[in-house]
Amino acid sequence: MAVLGHLIDGNSRVYGIIADPIAQVRAPDAMNEIIAARKSNAVFVPFHVHAGDLSVFVAGLKAWRNLPGFTLTVPHKETARALCDRVGPMAAITGSVNVVRKGSDGAWEGETYDGLGFVSGLKSEGIDPAGASIYVQGAGGASKAIVAALADAGARRIAVANRSTIRATILIERLETVYPGRCVIAGPADLVGADIVINTTSLGLNENDPSPIDTSALHSRQIIAEVIMRPDTTALLEVAQARGCRVHKGVHMLTGQVREIANFLGI
Amino acid sequence: MAVLGHLIDGNSRVYGIIADPIAQVRAPDAMNEIIAARKSNAVFVPFHVHAGDLSVFVAGLKAWRNLPGFTLTVPHKETARALCDRVGPMAAITGSVNVVRKGSDGAWEGETYDGLGFVSGLKSEGIDPAGASIYVQGAGGASKAIVAALADAGARRIAVANRSTIRATILIERLETVYPGRCVIAGPADLVGADIVINTTSLGLNENDPSPIDTSALHSRQIIAEVIMRPDTTALLEVAQARGCRVHKGVHMLTGQVREIANFLGI
Repeated sequence: MAVLGHLIDGNSRVYGIIADPIAQVRAPDAMNEIIAARKSNAVFVPFHVHAGDLSVFVAGLKAWRNLPGFTLTVPHKETARALCDRVGPMAAITGSVNVVRKGSDGAWEGETYDGLGFVSGLKSEGIDPAGASIYVQGAGGASKAIVAALADAGARRIAVANRSTIRATILIERLETVYPGRCVIAGPADLVGADIVINTTSLGLNENDPSPIDTSALHSRQIIAEVIMRPDTTALLEVAQARGCRVHKGVHMLTGQVREIANFLGI
Repeated sequence: MAVLGHLIDGNSRVYGIIADPIAQVRAPDAMNEIIAARKSNAVFVPFHVHAGDLSVFVAGLKAWRNLPGFTLTVPHKETARALCDRVGPMAAITGSVNVVRKGSDGAWEGETYDGLGFVSGLKSEGIDPAGASIYVQGAGGASKAIVAALADAGARRIAVANRSTIRATILIERLETVYPGRCVIAGPADLVGADIVINTTSLGLNENDPSPIDTSALHSRQIIAEVIMRPDTTALLEVAQARGCRVHKGVHMLTGQVREIANFLGI
């Protein structure tokens, strides 16, 4: 819980998160905690902006000299891509942007840290995806970002499993052009052979959700990772723990992402 | 000194001051102190915006749903008038706006509290301008706002003295249409006959400034008031004190204005 411990004055830089709805966002709390820890003269605030108003709002932010950048979440992550003058490699691959900063030439520079934050969270727990064989359940927005970041971090093989094979195929074809021969549609052997198993679906958010993966195949040489933050320990992680797996909670993706975004924004 | 004692979260309202330069603004400190005292879930930040960017920035603010309003200072107070959909009586008279809020219909409502804040400061010290004869030195922006607010508060006679009689005449003609027969060009007898004498010029900011008014005419039945905040007690106020006058410091205008603006913005 971040209580702003410093004075806001005429020299303070201002950052914020653009979202709709806004009430649930946790970024101000997390970012103001980092601001306090780094003793920056800055503050991070909520921007409640409707989808149709994003471009006029961002045009206004360009004129706000002491605003070095901002983050975005639902429903703005795809539309923000078009407002950027330049984007980083993850945004180029995924078509999604969740942080934008002003470059030294005044241009908007966008990137997405959804996947990079997950990888940063893994590494902060001593887990290096370089050279690993990874099984990823799900092929939605979170999966796309995570698979791209894992490939970028040097994962040897990434097997993507999804209820809709078409969606997984589209994701893999997109990655194939940038990281050829690394991503495949998951087959039956991939779950057993994986060093790291990651759930990127929303199954586990609710108490009665079915398991996102076949837990009977898990074994103690595997690391099982989540993107779900609440509950802190999902049913999947509980079962994995019982089967002797090392588990990696969803919260690490948040803390990894917050740290990376703070660095990108110069907080 | 205001340290934000509360958590900024997704439900926080955000306010700010638009200015250029920005480093010197004291509004964030003063307003965050009021926010803390009123236990509002809000924060007040600096907006550094160049003169030519004001309209694009304010268009962006319209899209920011949890921003109920903002204040402005140099160089935006006159140009802001044109961006408002409606203005209050003081803004209509002076052509200057230093606070804008979103009305319930989404329209921008502007007003200036430069003069109303001065009157509020007088009243907070138990000085009522209603029925008083007042001598005002200066005919610039601060004078215009203060004279209008004094007339609005029921001052009986306001004598305006200025080095340039033309400027004083223009000011008085403007006021004449709204408050007929109340404002006059100051003659020699007005300084002696005044209940309240107000310096609205910048003379007194610097140590070697000449006195803005002829202090030999001051007497102990008068109240001498300043708009200058630094030094806290100007040379004029020191001489006035020595002559037995009651003095009214510039700081009361600031505190009066901050309180009135916070109320206008619903902070």
